[in-house]
Amino acid sequence: MLETVFERLQEIYPEMVDFRRDLHMYPELSHHEENTPLKVENFLRNLGLEVRSQVGGRGVVGLLRGGKPGKTVALRADFDALPIQEENDVEYKSRIPGVMHACGHDIHTAALLGVAKVLTEVRDQIEGNIVFIHQFAEEVIPGGAKFMIEDGCLDGVDVIYGAHVSSIHPLGTIGVREGDTMAAGDTFEIDIFGKGGHAATPHLTVDPIVVGSQLIINLQQIVGRKVDPLKPAVVSVAAFNSGTGFNVIPDKAKITGTVRTFDEDVRDMIEDLIGEIVNSTCNGVGATAKYEYVRGYPAVKNHPDETKRIEELAINLFGSENTKRIPAQMGMEDFAYYLQKVPGTFFYVGGKSDLFEEFPHHHPKFNVDERSMIQIGKLFISAVFDFLSNEETEEKKLVEAP
Amino acid sequence: MLETVFERLQEIYPEMVDFRRDLHMYPELSHHEENTPLKVENFLRNLGLEVRSQVGGRGVVGLLRGGKPGKTVALRADFDALPIQEENDVEYKSRIPGVMHACGHDIHTAALLGVAKVLTEVRDQIEGNIVFIHQFAEEVIPGGAKFMIEDGCLDGVDVIYGAHVSSIHPLGTIGVREGDTMAAGDTFEIDIFGKGGHAATPHLTVDPIVVGSQLIINLQQIVGRKVDPLKPAVVSVAAFNSGTGFNVIPDKAKITGTVRTFDEDVRDMIEDLIGEIVNSTCNGVGATAKYEYVRGYPAVKNHPDETKRIEELAINLFGSENTKRIPAQMGMEDFAYYLQKVPGTFFYVGGKSDLFEEFPHHHPKFNVDERSMIQIGKLFISAVFDFLSNEETEEKKLVEAP
Amino acid sequence: MLETVFERLQEIYPEMVDFRRDLHMYPELSHHEENTPLKVENFLRNLGLEVRSQVGGRGVVGLLRGGKPGKTVALRADFDALPIQEENDVEYKSRIPGVMHACGHDIHTAALLGVAKVLTEVRDQIEGNIVFIHQFAEEVIPGGAKFMIEDGCLDGVDVIYGAHVSSIHPLGTIGVREGDTMAAGDTFEIDIFGKGGHAATPHLTVDPIVVGSQLIINLQQIVGRKVDPLKPAVVSVAAFNSGTGFNVIPDKAKITGTVRTFDEDVRDMIEDLIGEIVNSTCNGVGATAKYEYVRGYPAVKNHPDETKRIEELAINLFGSENTKRIPAQMGMEDFAYYLQKVPGTFFYVGGKSDLFEEFPHHHPKFNVDERSMIQIGKLFISAVFDFLSNEETEEKKLVEAP
Amino acid sequence: MLETVFERLQEIYPEMVDFRRDLHMYPELSHHEENTPLKVENFLRNLGLEVRSQVGGRGVVGLLRGGKPGKTVALRADFDALPIQEENDVEYKSRIPGVMHACGHDIHTAALLGVAKVLTEVRDQIEGNIVFIHQFAEEVIPGGAKFMIEDGCLDGVDVIYGAHVSSIHPLGTIGVREGDTMAAGDTFEIDIFGKGGHAATPHLTVDPIVVGSQLIINLQQIVGRKVDPLKPAVVSVAAFNSGTGFNVIPDKAKITGTVRTFDEDVRDMIEDLIGEIVNSTCNGVGATAKYEYVRGYPAVKNHPDETKRIEELAINLFGSENTKRIPAQMGMEDFAYYLQKVPGTFFYVGGKSDLFEEFPHHHPKFNVDERSMIQIGKLFISAVFDFLSNEETEEKKLVEAP
Repeated sequence: MLETVFERLQEIYPEMVDFRRDLHMYPELSHHEENTPLKVENFLRNLGLEVRSQVGGRGVVGLLRGGKPGKTVALRADFDALPIQEENDVEYKSRIPGVMHACGHDIHTAALLGVAKVLTEVRDQIEGNIVFIHQFAEEVIPGGAKFMIEDGCLDGVDVIYGAHVSSIHPLGTIGVREGDTMAAGDTFEIDIFGKGGHAATPHLTVDPIVVGSQLIINLQQIVGRKVDPLKPAVVSVAAFNSGTGFNVIPDKAKITGTVRTFDEDVRDMIEDLIGEIVNSTCNGVGATAKYEYVRGYPAVKNHPDETKRIEELAINLFGSENTKRIPAQMGMEDFAYYLQKVPGTFFYVGGKSDLFEEFPHHHPKFNVDERSMIQIGKLFISAVFDFLSNEETEEKKLVEAP
Repeated sequence: MLETVFERLQEIYPEMVDFRRDLHMYPELSHHEENTPLKVENFLRNLGLEVRSQVGGRGVVGLLRGGKPGKTVALRADFDALPIQEENDVEYKSRIPGVMHACGHDIHTAALLGVAKVLTEVRDQIEGNIVFIHQFAEEVIPGGAKFMIEDGCLDGVDVIYGAHVSSIHPLGTIGVREGDTMAAGDTFEIDIFGKGGHAATPHLTVDPIVVGSQLIINLQQIVGRKVDPLKPAVVSVAAFNSGTGFNVIPDKAKITGTVRTFDEDVRDMIEDLIGEIVNSTCNGVGATAKYEYVRGYPAVKNHPDETKRIEELAINLFGSENTKRIPAQMGMEDFAYYLQKVPGTFFYVGGKSDLFEEFPHHHPKFNVDERSMIQIGKLFISAVFDFLSNEETEEKKLVEAP
Repeated sequence: MLETVFERLQEIYPEMVDFRRDLHMYPELSHHEENTPLKVENFLRNLGLEVRSQVGGRGVVGLLRGGKPGKTVALRADFDALPIQEENDVEYKSRIPGVMHACGHDIHTAALLGVAKVLTEVRDQIEGNIVFIHQFAEEVIPGGAKFMIEDGCLDGVDVIYGAHVSSIHPLGTIGVREGDTMAAGDTFEIDIFGKGGHAATPHLTVDPIVVGSQLIINLQQIVGRKVDPLKPAVVSVAAFNSGTGFNVIPDKAKITGTVRTFDEDVRDMIEDLIGEIVNSTCNGVGATAKYEYVRGYPAVKNHPDETKRIEELAINLFGSENTKRIPAQMGMEDFAYYLQKVPGTFFYVGGKSDLFEEFPHHHPKFNVDERSMIQIGKLFISAVFDFLSNEETEEKKLVEAP
Repeated sequence: MLETVFERLQEIYPEMVDFRRDLHMYPELSHHEENTPLKVENFLRNLGLEVRSQVGGRGVVGLLRGGKPGKTVALRADFDALPIQEENDVEYKSRIPGVMHACGHDIHTAALLGVAKVLTEVRDQIEGNIVFIHQFAEEVIPGGAKFMIEDGCLDGVDVIYGAHVSSIHPLGTIGVREGDTMAAGDTFEIDIFGKGGHAATPHLTVDPIVVGSQLIINLQQIVGRKVDPLKPAVVSVAAFNSGTGFNVIPDKAKITGTVRTFDEDVRDMIEDLIGEIVNSTCNGVGATAKYEYVRGYPAVKNHPDETKRIEELAINLFGSENTKRIPAQMGMEDFAYYLQKVPGTFFYVGGKSDLFEEFPHHHPKFNVDERSMIQIGKLFISAVFDFLSNEETEEKKLVEAP
């Protein structure tokens, strides 16, 4: 049956391309998606699925009930775009100035809709249910995943899969990873309050620039001295701004930055430690400070069994030479929230080909080979059938556990 | 004769007040003085003096030739205002939005014009000449003094005196100091060029914020480790700006600040040392930098003999209890340039009284008692006669020299 | 047959205990082992093996030729002790003041000799050869492994296994890990040359304490800013010494420390970067420096296939609940050198039991349950037979490769 | 009469030389002076003066009552030596290994004894009294001055003079300075308590080397940011010691150093500020600290009138070309304590000549021309007569005061 479904997927590929290019021409920024969710909703409704819109805000969730009872698989695609002016010279170039699908979410969405269509056609043969999660606002904090989960998108779901197209991995390859896959990403904001004055009489001031510089230097110790060297962590200051001109010591300084971790204990420790270092650095010289730490997405922690399932399915579909265990990344993804609730895995699908020059994600010239939608589709479909039909899963797990 | 001249000064005091208040109502910024020099020029011409305008740009110089031959004394007043919005509630409040005589230059100018008037009246009895230097642009670098000197304002001058009214010293008091009196003031500008990138992958960047912070910390050593502790020096960073947001490490940082010194060797050393520290701090981590050091005014170094002359004259005029040796200041004055060319001294005249609440110079509520113009006038006039008549000066100097 | 061999191992356990306790009572420091290698040599010779002594210095290598042709398996145990005064209250407490087997090398040696004895008894049934590598000097740099390899101990060897008893893992458990298992460990030594002088006149000195402090602060950036956060690294300063007393700025400072890495590129980068930071930190303020970086052991990188072999054998022998994938460690082991030459793996064998209170390795009260020698022996013996009989290994490897 | 006394001084010069050379050959360390005070005591007793020995410990005070009533002048010389091995090749080289008069205290003592002798001879003509203060232990903290004052050596004294021979100022020259002349000198000791551990697992430690380095960097800000740039101050760390070897992070670090100031407010502020910086630097990262600040000598603050007296006398005696106003020094002298109690001044007498190569004080080859004792003697004697006979002093002071 899988073969038949794959053939149908190939047949409707032009339709997926059309849908993707339409999204690409009319991208919408995170939390401002209006037409995109409407288009998705219409597509799913036309298939005859049960559809909920405005899930958690702007999300769309379609439910395909299979012909036979069984478990429930969720598949997720995100649909927001980025505040980037496209520089590609393609027919379907973004028509919206300063907004662009520069991370492939148009690919994800169109691929998932194609999957929905072909699976709907074989609904009767499906032993269980499939939830299509079309998520808004993945690119910003707070992202849409959290709100959609709170609004019930995972209710009754047994497992979830997500895919990301990659402009730097070749078309036809799949990247998987178990455990820590993408980092938790938080932000911090520190306001240092000194006492301004004339630069010629520094002793009458509390110099926030020197205090801020000390603070930044002191923060460098966190990763090198305070974090277990075997647990990856990043503490980066992204901005330090204080003063103008030459002769006046300003009265305050602002420092902002980000923290990336995988381990929740390390995350907690860094949040606390920054606060302690801020206080102590300021106290010593009579400055005060305001410190805010905002938690972003948690780390994406792929479940071992589901990762192995995708790995094995990928080997079967694309060959072991095209299926790689990839390293973790310090970037973040709010797919992490789904994995905190249900088992699942998030994998990468190559989109680099001779059609386009290679540019990184978020670049004005980012583009990927649309045929990657076929790979995404095939893996999603395989995973659905494998999971739903695979009654021995639990037992197998018991045997295999190391 | 001095008594008669002092009486006349008192008689024309209302005229000086009028002139001062007119200047106060229509202040003009440094290097943008247009009406102020015209008013000064007209006043001096009306006295019948030989007047040169546009000296070195916008300066005005009046020459009073005495009735008898002799040496030449220069008296200097500055006439530019500051970019400050006045907050005083006085009848003669500044009519120019955002511009204010908040440092007393209006007082200086009116006082010197009064002096010019009363000395002109006794021209015949003067053994020598008097040069009235009305200087533009004292508040900014480069100031007017240098240009006026280059344009000849000190040609033939044997000695120069300058006065500054003070809002924090009581009316009736005089402050003098020999030697180092106000600091040399320079500025520096450092551009650090790193390599921007994602804050989650700092190893792919050269972080200009950390480099800049290190640099600022390293600069702190100059005063504490590299400068003779007996030679005052200040190195202050007044601005550090780099980056915006949370997740991007910027590619550059800008640092600006000021250096204050009295000793030219220390000044040279600091200029070089900042450069070396900039280079070494950047080199170690792969950053580069552009460093510019701009020399501002040199230090005001009052000549001992002329300082003692003013001190003794002040004791005679106002009593020893009202004549103070004051500490040096890290602020700067381009009167320094005149003192590099001819002997002289720069002294302070108290302007604080019950008429106004005390505010520091450059404050939106700065004001001084206008009667300070009388003290300025009396000391200038006394100094002129003392210097011109005092034939024994040179010999005395030989005897007194330690 | 394995069962018979295991029974024999159990029978000779008292002999192994005797041997271990004798070693424990008469420990010898690294590179000063004299009686220990003699005892090992005698034991192996008495078994009738071909024995080479003084291999690479103080090593002993025994060769057991099996009854049938085949591959060659090496098993390694180290036999040096530590400069620690034992504080255990046991009958076999160290008789050598200040020297102690506080890391379990006595266990390793006795276990391997037991293995040699029982395998010799079934020599005829062995298809291949077994090399018993008794290594000196594992605790110090340079360790014995490198010298023994240079002296031929791995010649003709196809695979190597090594075990380490652990005082913190329970008796009966096995810990395995593939890939990066123990870190490369290097040391550095930095001499900073400033210019001494009176502490009251710092401007006449080049202060090596301030330069050294800056250097140490600057080194903190390496791990946090310059190393890929996904690649573990440690840069630790272990000593900073400069000056005595209160009133004299010294003319030099000495800084020593260690670097731990897994990735050779990171290792190279850190070696270079420390040098650049040393130079730039010193240059900026007129100091000079001498920098030496000494490479210690490379990282222990366990081969995936051999690790999986040990893992599977351990699951069979001790159950999957007693066989753990363990995290990497930043400590080091010169077993790394063997793995650079031939495939193999290094695994941990639990030695913690109710017999002793738990203390970490290198502690004066360190001790382990001697029955761990049975586990080491069984895994070594199983690995030997599995490897030598397992003709399909190579093919299997091709199939399994991801 | 002065002429006669000066002639006598010249006549007894050989006796002074003998006494000085005897002291030079048998130097005694601070607080361990035994024979030196005995010799002084004997000399003074032989003159018939009233002598108190063991004043404040090891001091000797002689009182010469003049023939007529009047005020009381004190003259002070110190007599302790230094822990230095003399390297001069002179007949009177130190006979005591490792101890040397390398700062000229032997000169001071012999000169003052010569003065005592010649003044005793004219006792009848003296209108007032002279106190000869022979002080022990000037080179160490706590010095002898404080104890001698507590023991009454200044009781009834109206004025005090002290002289220091200088190996770097030419014979025949006198150096004077009013106000801040030598700095207050304090010491501090900081123990940082972290948590030791393996250098490969820094996150399990609190690294006292990094904390100490930060602290030293933070201390650099005191002089450059917190002290009025017009008030000289030095904060120097003289020793930082922590750890040995390469692989162990130590559990503590020790930092010692000195503080030099002239202004008591600055001194207090620095003492407090170091404590605050120590605490805040440690707190931020979980370390603790013990901080001790020990006050040494206060600043030598020469009284203006007495300084002018010595200056005028020196000009008369040696010419104005040989009488210099010298800069302040950051070194210290416990003559400061006397000046806290009574008016007076401390001046320098040149001792450099062609007889010896120039070496700084405290150098193993330090030496000075013994004829400097004549200059010291003449100035002391002149000052005594000038002060005692100068009845108008007080009135003059009132008139001259600025």
